[in-house]
Amino acid sequence: MNIALDAMGGDNAPFATIKGARNALKLYPEISRLFLVGDSAALQSEMDKYKLDDSRATIIHAPDVVEMHESGAKALRRKKNSSISIATDLVKSGDAAAVVSAGNTGAAVAAATVKLRTLNGVERAGIATAMPNEYGICNLLDAGANPEAKPSHLVTYAIMGAVYARQVLGVEKPNIGLMSNGEEDEKGTTFTKETFALLNHMHNTGRAPFNFVGNVEGHDLFASKLDVVLTDGFTGNIVLKSCEATAKAMSKWLKLEFKRSPFRIMGAAIARGAFKAVKKRSSYEYVGGSPLLGVKGTCIIAHGSSSPLAIQNAIRVAVESVSQEVNPHIEEALLEINRP
Amino acid sequence: MNIALDAMGGDNAPFATIKGARNALKLYPEISRLFLVGDSAALQSEMDKYKLDDSRATIIHAPDVVEMHESGAKALRRKKNSSISIATDLVKSGDAAAVVSAGNTGAAVAAATVKLRTLNGVERAGIATAMPNEYGICNLLDAGANPEAKPSHLVTYAIMGAVYARQVLGVEKPNIGLMSNGEEDEKGTTFTKETFALLNHMHNTGRAPFNFVGNVEGHDLFASKLDVVLTDGFTGNIVLKSCEATAKAMSKWLKLEFKRSPFRIMGAAIARGAFKAVKKRSSYEYVGGSPLLGVKGTCIIAHGSSSPLAIQNAIRVAVESVSQEVNPHIEEALLEINRP
Repeated sequence: MNIALDAMGGDNAPFATIKGARNALKLYPEISRLFLVGDSAALQSEMDKYKLDDSRATIIHAPDVVEMHESGAKALRRKKNSSISIATDLVKSGDAAAVVSAGNTGAAVAAATVKLRTLNGVERAGIATAMPNEYGICNLLDAGANPEAKPSHLVTYAIMGAVYARQVLGVEKPNIGLMSNGEEDEKGTTFTKETFALLNHMHNTGRAPFNFVGNVEGHDLFASKLDVVLTDGFTGNIVLKSCEATAKAMSKWLKLEFKRSPFRIMGAAIARGAFKAVKKRSSYEYVGGSPLLGVKGTCIIAHGSSSPLAIQNAIRVAVESVSQEVNPHIEEALLEINRP
Repeated sequence: MNIALDAMGGDNAPFATIKGARNALKLYPEISRLFLVGDSAALQSEMDKYKLDDSRATIIHAPDVVEMHESGAKALRRKKNSSISIATDLVKSGDAAAVVSAGNTGAAVAAATVKLRTLNGVERAGIATAMPNEYGICNLLDAGANPEAKPSHLVTYAIMGAVYARQVLGVEKPNIGLMSNGEEDEKGTTFTKETFALLNHMHNTGRAPFNFVGNVEGHDLFASKLDVVLTDGFTGNIVLKSCEATAKAMSKWLKLEFKRSPFRIMGAAIARGAFKAVKKRSSYEYVGGSPLLGVKGTCIIAHGSSSPLAIQNAIRVAVESVSQEVNPHIEEALLEINRP
C-alpha cells in the first residue's frame, strides 16, 4: 500500500517525521511507497541527515505549511499548496491509501472531509483516540472532529467504533459506553439522553454490532472493560486534554518532590524502571495516531508533539487500518443496520 | 456561627462525619453550634466511640437517608425526613448559616435550590470545585450542578467565582478562563462562543470584577495562573472526574510497577515522602468541600468518599464562606454589574 505523510506537520517536523518514516519503512514491508509531502529542500536535507535512503520514500514538494495555531478550515482554503492539502490530494487521486499528519488537527480533518468526503451513510467523521486502560485500549470517539454532534452522529460513531475495535483490536463484540455526568440511566443532557435512547434501542433489538453498557464516567475510561467511549467532539477533546494534563502535572510534581532530598533522588533512581514503564503505558508515542473514522480513504491524526516514535506508530495505525479494511467493513455494517 | 452537617451523607458516614466534626470543632472556635443531622441512635453511638463530647455538637434526628445512587431530586421529594433535607431546613429557618454534605450531590443541590432558593440576580447555582494548580488553587465552576447551562448562567458564574476567589482566596482581580476545545478565540461550540462574547464584552468595558483570559484547555487547569475556569455542569463534572480518574490510574499503575521487583519497592520506600507530598497536594481531602455558589445560605458539597479529614476541611470551607460574607458580596457585585 501507499501512504502519504504530511512531513511538515507537527511541532517536531521535519526531524520527527523523517526519522519516524525511516523507522516505519524498516518495520512495515506492506508499505510499497511512502510519500513525504513538504518542502523538498528541507526534506531532502533531513533525509540525508538521518540516512533515509529507502527507495520506497518519495518526496512530493509542497511549498506551504498550515501552522499549528491557524484556523484549520480557513488555512486550508488559503494555502492550497500546504503539505496537508497535497498529502490528502494523494489519497483523493488514489495514489495513496492513507494520509498521516501530526500537523494542525483542524486542517487535517477539514482536508479529509472536504476532499475525500464521508463514507456512504456517514454524516460526520469522528476521531477515535486510543487511551490506555487496565484491560487494554479504550477508544475515545469523538476526540475533537465534530464539536457540536447530534445524537445520530454518535450512533454512527458507535457502529464505526465497533467495527474499528473488531477489525484492528480484535474484539468480537466491543463494549461501548456513553460519556455522561453520572452512571445512572437518567443522568446527562438532552443530547446524551436522546443518544442513550437510540443506542439502547439498537442494543435491545439485537441489531447492534456492539454491547451498549450505558452511561460511563471518567474512571471507566481507565478501569472498566470498555472498547469505545462515545462523546461529542467538544467534550471528547476536553476530556483527552484534561487527562493528558493531569498525567503531566502529576509527573512534574513528583519530580519536584524527588528533588527536595538526595535520598528521594536516590530512591527514585532505584525505582526508575517503574516510572519508565508507566510513561510507556500512558504515552501517546506508543499509541501513535488516531483514525478519523468515516471518511473515504484513511486519515490518521497524530499528536502535535509527535516524536519520531509517535510518527512511526501513526504510520503503523495507517497500515493496520488499510490492511484490516476498516472502511469497507464500516460501510457494510452501516448497510446492515439500515436494512429493514 | 451555626453549621448543619448532613451526618449520614457520604460513603464513610457516620464514622467520617462524626470524626470530622469532632476535629473541626477543635479547630474552629467560630462555630457556636454544629448540628449533626441523621439517625440519632447511630450518631450517638459514633459520638461515644470517637469521644465527641463538645457541648456545641447537637444531634438533630432525621430517620431517612438519600442513598448515593438515587436520583437526587426525586429522592428529596420522597424522603422528606432525610438527613440532607432536614439539614437544609435548618439553614432555611435561620438556625444554621451553612449546610455541609458529602452525600448524594444531586439531592444536596436540589435541597439547596428548592428550599433556600437562589440569590437575587442568580438564575442557577453552580458548584465551584477547587483543583490544585502550580500557582495555588483553580476553581472549576460549574462542576456539576447545572448540566445544561446557558451563556447567561456562565456570566453569573464568572461574577460569583470572582467574588469567591477574592473573598476566600484573597485574589484581588481573579483570572478567569472559559473551558473550550482550543485556546484560539474562535474555538468552541455555539454555547461557548456566545459565552465568550459576553465575558469579553464585560472585560473590555471595564465592568468585570475579573480578568477574562479567554478560552483555556486542560493543561491550563494545572499550569496557568487561573483562579476560575468556567464551564457548563455537564462538561465540568466530566472534567473533574476524568482528572481524578487519571491521577488514580497513574498511581495504581505505578504501584503495580513498583511491585515487579524488590529493588523498585526499596527505591519507592526511600522516596515515599515525595509520593505522600503529591498525594496531599492533589487530594480532595485537603480541599474539603465545594461551595454551591448562588443559593441563599451557604451550601458546601463534599466528595462522596470523604474521610474525616475531608469532612473537617469541608466544614472549614463553610466557616470561611460565612465569615468572608461571600453571599452579600455576590449580591453586591451582581447589583454593581447591572447598574446602568
